Amino acid sequence: MRRGLAAALVALTALLARPASAEEAPGWRDVLPENLVLIDVAHGRIAIELAPDFAPRHAERFRALVRAGFYDGQHFYRVIDGFVAQGGIGEGDDRKLAAWPALAAEMERPRAGLSFTSLASPDLFAKDTGFVHGFAAASDGEAAWMVHCPGLVAMARDDAPDTGATEFYVVIGHAPRRLDRIMSGFGRVIDGMAHVQALARGDPEVESGVIQDLAQADAILKATVAADLPEGTRPAYQVMATDDAAFAARIEARRVPQSPFFFRKPPPVLDVCNMSVPARLRPDAGAGDGRR
Amino acid sequence: MRRGLAAALVALTALLARPASAEEAPGWRDVLPENLVLIDVAHGRIAIELAPDFAPRHAERFRALVRAGFYDGQHFYRVIDGFVAQGGIGEGDDRKLAAWPALAAEMERPRAGLSFTSLASPDLFAKDTGFVHGFAAASDGEAAWMVHCPGLVAMARDDAPDTGATEFYVVIGHAPRRLDRIMSGFGRVIDGMAHVQALARGDPEVESGVIQDLAQADAILKATVAADLPEGTRPAYQVMATDDAAFAARIEARRVPQSPFFFRKPPPVLDVCNMSVPARLRPDAGAGDGRR
Repeated sequence: MRRGLAAALVALTALLARPASAEEAPGWRDVLPENLVLIDVAHGRIAIELAPDFAPRHAERFRALVRAGFYDGQHFYRVIDGFVAQGGIGEGDDRKLAAWPALAAEMERPRAGLSFTSLASPDLFAKDTGFVHGFAAASDGEAAWMVHCPGLVAMARDDAPDTGATEFYVVIGHAPRRLDRIMSGFGRVIDGMAHVQALARGDPEVESGVIQDLAQADAILKATVAADLPEGTRPAYQVMATDDAAFAARIEARRVPQSPFFFRKPPPVLDVCNMSVPARLRPDAGAGDGRR
Repeated sequence: MRRGLAAALVALTALLARPASAEEAPGWRDVLPENLVLIDVAHGRIAIELAPDFAPRHAERFRALVRAGFYDGQHFYRVIDGFVAQGGIGEGDDRKLAAWPALAAEMERPRAGLSFTSLASPDLFAKDTGFVHGFAAASDGEAAWMVHCPGLVAMARDDAPDTGATEFYVVIGHAPRRLDRIMSGFGRVIDGMAHVQALARGDPEVESGVIQDLAQADAILKATVAADLPEGTRPAYQVMATDDAAFAARIEARRVPQSPFFFRKPPPVLDVCNMSVPARLRPDAGAGDGRR
């Protein structure tokens, strides 16, 4: 049983994070410090990689808000288990909001010009899904957009499309794909997702999950753009390359698992949100959270 | 913006937990105390409803293990963010394991005889999906099985199918549907999922996510079958009925959302793991965790 348990564990996780074979060493790319935002909460540090390829204005806005100290001392004030953790000032100071006008939405962009690694099969919601530099994405051939997998960071908004400004959310549950293409996704959590999952929840039946007593909510202790930290103290992240042969092999290993654990093969389909793209601290440098 | 925020929140959560219209009051069914297992961890109480309709032997085994105090003082020793939280004795006392021989698997059952509320559309993994008394399920017409949505409770096993015995896992990430029909699911978390999400994580790259130092893992303080508690102190849960007209209306509201927040309609498809079935403490009685 002891051996058995271990075997089962390996079989299950092989599908999450292991290379398809020992010969296919995955490639890694460095996350640019300007695209790396660190959010400290009581549970630890959350690392977000911005995606200016998909939402340049929103990435720039988020960076600017972080640099202005806008989020420091604010809260994850609306956290719905299995759905989203929303941060910002909430029902906060209107003067603060007035300084940051609503942005034109960035919900999709042309597929052309993107290094789009396709999973080469439709899923329930889109004709094509895949990855763009580690970001889960979907496409109808012409347009491409970020997919609401767990870890996606997007701007909250009012009913009208061009109304996002400062309040952001992180997806913490089974992908709410119905929000694809109607929200402006601008990044994803690459480290510290467990800390997002540890955030205090609101009651979804009371004011849409807004935590009624802010003292019960988790504070954003400090948000930082990594580029603003001295070079030696900056965490240096890498994300697994999604456009090389090693990743193609991972995709195939996912589609048709070879482990004996799968004594009966699952349908040979791929769910883009079930293929997490690993990130790590660069082996030679940096100080991060140490847990993913 | 203030109003706007609130509106957006409502629109988003409407899809999670609200009835389709004020006229369609949802029905609720009582959870049998014999099918309710309470697991106390430092973060709070986790409530699991067993599913003997799908896995009678596993439900009975889990009940028996709980009643024998098997899990008390043990740990969630393998917790992989975005995947599963596994509890039990892990690499524990072999004598303890010897007393609980491996069970014949219960990975599927005939669809006939189940009150199966179909979503009436295929998804990526199955010809038909839906709900059986609140449990997410799938079917190929003949057989039916529990789906690996977040909150599913199933028995871990070795490579061979009939090897599950005592170690169980809870799905904590985007549904790993490839495990459907090859694992024996026997229940689901109906309350306290946030406490499962707060459990200490292992490193998926180190021994398949097994937490190396058990002192860093969350302990199972106490597991209890609710039926064994005195009637007055027993939490009395209800789960929303999934086989009535109100739930049918919820399904349709999910398929084609009417809220103005969806200024562009999503594809009219349904992902069974994105339609959570609410549970609550019976309004007139009981003491539970108070958070979902």
